[in-house]
Amino acid sequence: MKAIIVRPGEKGAVLKDIDLKENVGENKVKLRTLRVGICGTDRGIVTGKLSFTRAPEGFNYLVLGHEGLARVEEVGENVNLKEGDLVVPVVRRGCGKCSNCKIGRQDFCETGEFIEAGIRGKHGFMREEFVDDAKYLVKVPRDLGELAVLTEPLSNVMKAYNELVFVQKRSVWNCEDSTFGCRRATIVGSGPIGQFFAMVFKTNGFDVTVVNRREPNQIEEKISKTVGYSFVDTSKGLEDVPDSDVIVDTSGYPSAFIPLLKKMKRNGVLLLFGTVGGEKDEIYSDLITFFVEYNISVIGSVNASKLDFEQGMTLLSVWKTRYNGVLQDMITKIVKPEETQDAILEKQKGSIKTVIEWSK
Amino acid sequence: MKAIIVRPGEKGAVLKDIDLKENVGENKVKLRTLRVGICGTDRGIVTGKLSFTRAPEGFNYLVLGHEGLARVEEVGENVNLKEGDLVVPVVRRGCGKCSNCKIGRQDFCETGEFIEAGIRGKHGFMREEFVDDAKYLVKVPRDLGELAVLTEPLSNVMKAYNELVFVQKRSVWNCEDSTFGCRRATIVGSGPIGQFFAMVFKTNGFDVTVVNRREPNQIEEKISKTVGYSFVDTSKGLEDVPDSDVIVDTSGYPSAFIPLLKKMKRNGVLLLFGTVGGEKDEIYSDLITFFVEYNISVIGSVNASKLDFEQGMTLLSVWKTRYNGVLQDMITKIVKPEETQDAILEKQKGSIKTVIEWSK
Amino acid sequence: MKAIIVRPGEKGAVLKDIDLKENVGENKVKLRTLRVGICGTDRGIVTGKLSFTRAPEGFNYLVLGHEGLARVEEVGENVNLKEGDLVVPVVRRGCGKCSNCKIGRQDFCETGEFIEAGIRGKHGFMREEFVDDAKYLVKVPRDLGELAVLTEPLSNVMKAYNELVFVQKRSVWNCEDSTFGCRRATIVGSGPIGQFFAMVFKTNGFDVTVVNRREPNQIEEKISKTVGYSFVDTSKGLEDVPDSDVIVDTSGYPSAFIPLLKKMKRNGVLLLFGTVGGEKDEIYSDLITFFVEYNISVIGSVNASKLDFEQGMTLLSVWKTRYNGVLQDMITKIVKPEETQDAILEKQKGSIKTVIEWSK
Amino acid sequence: MKAIIVRPGEKGAVLKDIDLKENVGENKVKLRTLRVGICGTDRGIVTGKLSFTRAPEGFNYLVLGHEGLARVEEVGENVNLKEGDLVVPVVRRGCGKCSNCKIGRQDFCETGEFIEAGIRGKHGFMREEFVDDAKYLVKVPRDLGELAVLTEPLSNVMKAYNELVFVQKRSVWNCEDSTFGCRRATIVGSGPIGQFFAMVFKTNGFDVTVVNRREPNQIEEKISKTVGYSFVDTSKGLEDVPDSDVIVDTSGYPSAFIPLLKKMKRNGVLLLFGTVGGEKDEIYSDLITFFVEYNISVIGSVNASKLDFEQGMTLLSVWKTRYNGVLQDMITKIVKPEETQDAILEKQKGSIKTVIEWSK
Repeated sequence: MKAIIVRPGEKGAVLKDIDLKENVGENKVKLRTLRVGICGTDRGIVTGKLSFTRAPEGFNYLVLGHEGLARVEEVGENVNLKEGDLVVPVVRRGCGKCSNCKIGRQDFCETGEFIEAGIRGKHGFMREEFVDDAKYLVKVPRDLGELAVLTEPLSNVMKAYNELVFVQKRSVWNCEDSTFGCRRATIVGSGPIGQFFAMVFKTNGFDVTVVNRREPNQIEEKISKTVGYSFVDTSKGLEDVPDSDVIVDTSGYPSAFIPLLKKMKRNGVLLLFGTVGGEKDEIYSDLITFFVEYNISVIGSVNASKLDFEQGMTLLSVWKTRYNGVLQDMITKIVKPEETQDAILEKQKGSIKTVIEWSK
Repeated sequence: MKAIIVRPGEKGAVLKDIDLKENVGENKVKLRTLRVGICGTDRGIVTGKLSFTRAPEGFNYLVLGHEGLARVEEVGENVNLKEGDLVVPVVRRGCGKCSNCKIGRQDFCETGEFIEAGIRGKHGFMREEFVDDAKYLVKVPRDLGELAVLTEPLSNVMKAYNELVFVQKRSVWNCEDSTFGCRRATIVGSGPIGQFFAMVFKTNGFDVTVVNRREPNQIEEKISKTVGYSFVDTSKGLEDVPDSDVIVDTSGYPSAFIPLLKKMKRNGVLLLFGTVGGEKDEIYSDLITFFVEYNISVIGSVNASKLDFEQGMTLLSVWKTRYNGVLQDMITKIVKPEETQDAILEKQKGSIKTVIEWSK
Repeated sequence: MKAIIVRPGEKGAVLKDIDLKENVGENKVKLRTLRVGICGTDRGIVTGKLSFTRAPEGFNYLVLGHEGLARVEEVGENVNLKEGDLVVPVVRRGCGKCSNCKIGRQDFCETGEFIEAGIRGKHGFMREEFVDDAKYLVKVPRDLGELAVLTEPLSNVMKAYNELVFVQKRSVWNCEDSTFGCRRATIVGSGPIGQFFAMVFKTNGFDVTVVNRREPNQIEEKISKTVGYSFVDTSKGLEDVPDSDVIVDTSGYPSAFIPLLKKMKRNGVLLLFGTVGGEKDEIYSDLITFFVEYNISVIGSVNASKLDFEQGMTLLSVWKTRYNGVLQDMITKIVKPEETQDAILEKQKGSIKTVIEWSK
Repeated sequence: MKAIIVRPGEKGAVLKDIDLKENVGENKVKLRTLRVGICGTDRGIVTGKLSFTRAPEGFNYLVLGHEGLARVEEVGENVNLKEGDLVVPVVRRGCGKCSNCKIGRQDFCETGEFIEAGIRGKHGFMREEFVDDAKYLVKVPRDLGELAVLTEPLSNVMKAYNELVFVQKRSVWNCEDSTFGCRRATIVGSGPIGQFFAMVFKTNGFDVTVVNRREPNQIEEKISKTVGYSFVDTSKGLEDVPDSDVIVDTSGYPSAFIPLLKKMKRNGVLLLFGTVGGEKDEIYSDLITFFVEYNISVIGSVNASKLDFEQGMTLLSVWKTRYNGVLQDMITKIVKPEETQDAILEKQKGSIKTVIEWSK
């Protein structure tokens, strides 16, 4: 079958015919790939910037792709899915050794011996079909259809949000009327992850500001209006950034979020989500004193549990109804498998999410 | 009566006769001061380094002292204490406006309009006697006696520890046998706060290392032996610092704890407790990526609730029995009120905690 | 204006012209009533069975109705709503004294001095218009429209569900894949509350069974099929009731849920939601032993916070998309204000929720 | 070696010479038994009332005893204990299959396939020596010495208390000053478990009442005075039982705690700890309504984690200092192995805890 593969250590991605023998035994499911999203991690892999990329054992290549959506074609014994069901596969598979992996929280794996489909040690979903364990497949509610390709990136946002809300129970953080209506979240970055954060916070009652070092493009402007958040161009200064209870960085650049910390309120949280290489910045001991005196917490968050995938799908259903057309608008480009390498390498102005269509 | 006073904005502390009229009305208690501890905050106030020092409204001076221990001399109506009881007063008094202050968690005050005895807006305990609200007094169990002067600094450590344990419930953090026996805490700084952190972690089953940029002095060596933790001199390198699940900074210097972060394990926590001015350090975006990929969290923690005072006293009772003489050893110097200014300004080598004896 | 009123202590409800002067001052909102739902509590008030019914101070009657939906007509200063917005008013208003009321959790009021619109001490919503405090109004997302009349009953279910999920964190209760896919909830009662519980549990991944002492009627059968839960007629025996992790009673009859406890699994929860008078049942010490040995917990749950209202609206948006037409089907009857007394008194076979239409 | 054995299904316990070959391999520890406490479960086993008693596989008898205290005699490889250390063994050993057992919380085992030393499927500690896995041994702090024989019963109380405090975070349950000073706990039963509950609640700041259907005996009176709780004889009526936030039943008799529920305050908890057979009582639907309207929760609690053992030891250290001689007083009788059967069968008036001395 056709697959997009990379060779760890080398740059570039190619569409190739590969021959993978995977049996549909007990607890297994055979799947036809429908759509696969492309994200910054894919770009990092293809440009050779991500050092942890790794082919599966016994292979000298890795099938790319971790934002999958597929249709069930055949089920083994003991599987609670049926032909025709749409599913989204979970990316990370646990080490089987640490407590977190044993209870399905491989996103908190302690050993680091997990594998990740399309990233390290396990073939990804950019191929015509694949076989997977039923327990790693999240069933898509019928109303979502192909929009479910957005589930995987959203799942990581859900995990971060859930962790944030949990951590903030360290003090009374709900407002005086029990809601989050008095809380302000400022999101650094307006890519798909930034947009999802904005929607999650809005749906949960927060006041939301998204910042970037430029003016919003047309799509961003439309989304910001529909969802109901403010967009601030910080290249013009930070005056319009409101005092915030949460600052979420989706950029990975210290220079993008450290200056914003002067807008952080007492008991606030800095949520770190973005990763990038090679930049440096200065911090002062005054910032440390501020963190202490203001009870600030910082949370680095990666990956997601299967529950986060399910909760993401629930929110997608809400947004489908509530934010007329916004989810469709976020998918700014649909490409064929042959166009994948280009789609990964050229990040076009005004694009939000590109997905590869493998089948309908 | 005699009191140690400072004039905000000026350096130095003086012993003066002051005349404060405080009535013992309903819910009020008249107290004779027994002992008051001296800490870094007092030093900061006396040397004029702490910008937030503030005299109470209507006064041009502030009575210093927030680590109090006093004996009840007279009680107003509706007070659940009796003459002769020993008490430790809580330092921070809430703003009365935000949710946290309304439920007794002024350590998480959101408005910043709290006051703190001996620090900002309220006279402290370095005076012969004072009147206070019963609800801010924590009764000392009889077995503790004068050791209870250690309660206030310990209370802040309790809050930080309690918050840490709560925040870590974001993943499974207890070891496979349900205890904390597999977890390692590394404490930066070997002053009284560092020692208390070491004892709290040890009592809760952690493996503990205390680091400083020098060899331990004699008292530190004795305490480390009795309590059962390792002392590492990091001026010789970081080789002997173990991989850690918690790193606690009590120094305030980024340069003291940032290099240690390479020892941080997945799902780990950096607890910020120390504050200091004027230093700067560089951070790299790789550190941010590390925080994200490793699910690291950072917690800045300040002050304590009344419950933390009570829990601190419970631990003091444990340590009195368990760590033979260590608490007494920590009080390295007892001075008279007249010697206070010198005691605050000269930090002597080998000293841990100096207390002023006001009465017996 | 026209209003449905009751006289506490007397039976019956009448439509009367009343004259209430309510000003639209600061933080206030004038509202036109659209729809008001009728529930068992209304029935209890009208038949004189609820002893706690109470007119507002200074009145000898009480305007009935607590399941409201209204349109904003005029806003006072400092209000974050605008003309035309739809809102659902919160029912319970706190005592202002206890910690829970101070932080917006009047559903956990400790003093019992709260008031409840349409139930005790405050006029309800069965009237043409009313003025209310903005902070007790929950804004309806545009996509919901008149379905939002279901928010109030659902809010109570949300509170109970949220409390259940919180309490169950006492042990690892998420399944091995982190979801709730392995958990079974059995709901006693198939009225609107039972249906909402079924939908909440389903949406969160649980396997759900609804039980009643009769066969499902046509609407129930349709809902059960669309939502995807089993309906068991327990008048034929308990064989078809599965072993359960949660048993929710919405009936109030001990004889309805105590026999089901033999189906309860280890670490399970019995959620008590229903209230009714005059029945008795026997319990054996063996049941107590079972509760102890099996770590069973029981949670009585009443009322809801404003956050629960918001979360209920989010779920209504999901169900509107996901459960084609089910929410509309649940509103089995729409009556005019003049028909209210009859609608309250005659509970018709096959009816689920009756609502009064006051305006469009 | 000598051991106290029972034959499941038969009554009585005998001291016999048994021959058990247990090797001290990797992770194993050879132990000399010092003391073993006797409790109601032992009585239930010896009188044949406990149906779940079970000999280990391959044996037709069971060595009795689960409240152990032993001295390390020999350690296998990879063990973090040394000769001479005192240890208390954990009783329950997990099924190895469910999530709770996998993370060391076998007290919440879901499969029921756990084993318990001296109770079901594993030989207990009433024998001269035994070999055990290091991970099930809790090291005794030096200051406790032989008092540590009280750890096992206390561990179960710790688990119940910890669960209670966790569950109560469903609302704001700390008092307005953040402590538990405004909360009242009423304990049904004044045996060792009742006494431990009283001490745990007192140490955590609660106001405590212990009730029984008789006057306190001399030792109970002394303990109540030292610890600072009230003892109420409920055979004279319930007038002196205060309104309570927590009611703990240690008796297992519904007739002992159900009448007390009229003293339960809003948001209160009924903690079920006692188990007994054969009694019945009536409950009314009014009680269910009360549970609902008052947000009452009920928690059945059994067994304990290793962490609860450790925390129990910490409290024993506190009480040793704080409650002069009370712990010694609780051990009302020390018997020889030969006297065990009689000690188990005759529960003497005025006795609290009997322990068997196997070695010094």
